[in-house]
Amino acid sequence: MDRFKSLPVNQLHQLLEGGPTLLVATRGFEGITNIMSMSFHMMIERKRGLIGVVIGTDGYSYEALHDTGQCVLAVPTYDMASTVIDIGNCSGRRIDKFERFGLTPILAESVRAPLIAECMVNIECEIFDRRMSGHYDGFIILRALHVWVDADREERRTLHHNGDGSFYADGEYVDLRDRIQLWNKYRK
Amino acid sequence: MDRFKSLPVNQLHQLLEGGPTLLVATRGFEGITNIMSMSFHMMIERKRGLIGVVIGTDGYSYEALHDTGQCVLAVPTYDMASTVIDIGNCSGRRIDKFERFGLTPILAESVRAPLIAECMVNIECEIFDRRMSGHYDGFIILRALHVWVDADREERRTLHHNGDGSFYADGEYVDLRDRIQLWNKYRK
Repeated sequence: MDRFKSLPVNQLHQLLEGGPTLLVATRGFEGITNIMSMSFHMMIERKRGLIGVVIGTDGYSYEALHDTGQCVLAVPTYDMASTVIDIGNCSGRRIDKFERFGLTPILAESVRAPLIAECMVNIECEIFDRRMSGHYDGFIILRALHVWVDADREERRTLHHNGDGSFYADGEYVDLRDRIQLWNKYRK
Repeated sequence: MDRFKSLPVNQLHQLLEGGPTLLVATRGFEGITNIMSMSFHMMIERKRGLIGVVIGTDGYSYEALHDTGQCVLAVPTYDMASTVIDIGNCSGRRIDKFERFGLTPILAESVRAPLIAECMVNIECEIFDRRMSGHYDGFIILRALHVWVDADREERRTLHHNGDGSFYADGEYVDLRDRIQLWNKYRK
C-alpha cells in the first residue's frame, strides 16, 4: 500500500476521461471477491468525482456490487492486456479470479472491495445513483471516495479497447497544456 | 460524402469505448452551427447505439442541442490536436467555429447538425433521454442514427485527453481478438 499515493478526487478526470479499459473489483457480504473487465465508463462530474459505468445485470459482479453498494475501479496497463481479456472470458461464479490470474487483493480504506496491487490506479467507489439501472441494463453512477496511484510503476501505458479483443496502448504524448485556456476556467 | 462509409450502429462501440476525444457539432433552428470539444462520454448500450455524454448547461452548444434534440459526434485524429484544444478555448456565441478553424460542414442524412468533413468518424445522434440532465449538469443519453467512417483516411490515431490539455495518441496495436470468448457471446 505504501507505494500508492493518494490523488484528490477532483483530479480523477485526468485518469479516466481518456477512456482506459478498467478492472472492477467487488467483495460480497459473504466475503467472495470478484473481478470483471469493463470499457463502458465515463466521467460525469469532476468536482464530486462521479463516474458512469455499465455493470450488467447478468454478470456475477452485479450482485456483490448492488448488495454492498461498493466496488473498486482499477486501471491495468499494457503488460496486463492478456489478463484483461482472460478476466472477461470467465465467471466469478466458478473461479476465484484473484487466484487464477495471480493478482493480489489489498485492503481498501473505505470500501470492502479490494484494491488490485498490480494495477497502476485504484479508485474506491460507492454507488451514488442507481435510478437508471433498470432502463439501461445496469447503468449506474459511482462516486469516487479515494484515488490511489502507483507513482513508481514503470509501465504506465493504459489500454483502449476497440470492442473486439484488440486494444490501442497509449502512444505519443501530445503536450498542449500551455495552449488550453477556457477549459481550465470551467474546471476550477 | 462519398468517402464516408456507413457502419452498422451496433458496431459503434468499436469506435467509442476506447475513449477518443470528440467534437460535437450542432445547428440551432436559426441556422447557426457550432462545435465543442468533449471527452466526457461513454457507450451505454451497444444494440441500440446509446451513448452517454455531458454537454454542460453553460456552453453555447447546450441550447441548440436541447432545442433541436440533435447533434453530430465527430472523431478527430492526431493531426487535429491543436484544433481540438482551440475549439475548447472559444465560444460559438462570438465566432463561427467552422470558419475560424477551416472545418467543412456536410449535410447529414437524418439530423440538421452538420457532419465535419475533416473528422475520421461522424455519428448522427438524437437525444434519447434527458431525465438526468438537471441532476448532473447536462448529462444526457444520445441515440446514434447513422455512423459514417472515412475508410480512406491515412491518419487514424485518435486522441485521449488527459484532462489538462495533453493527450495520448493511439499507440501500439495489441491484437488479442483470437483470445476473446465470453465478451463476444454477451455482445451477440
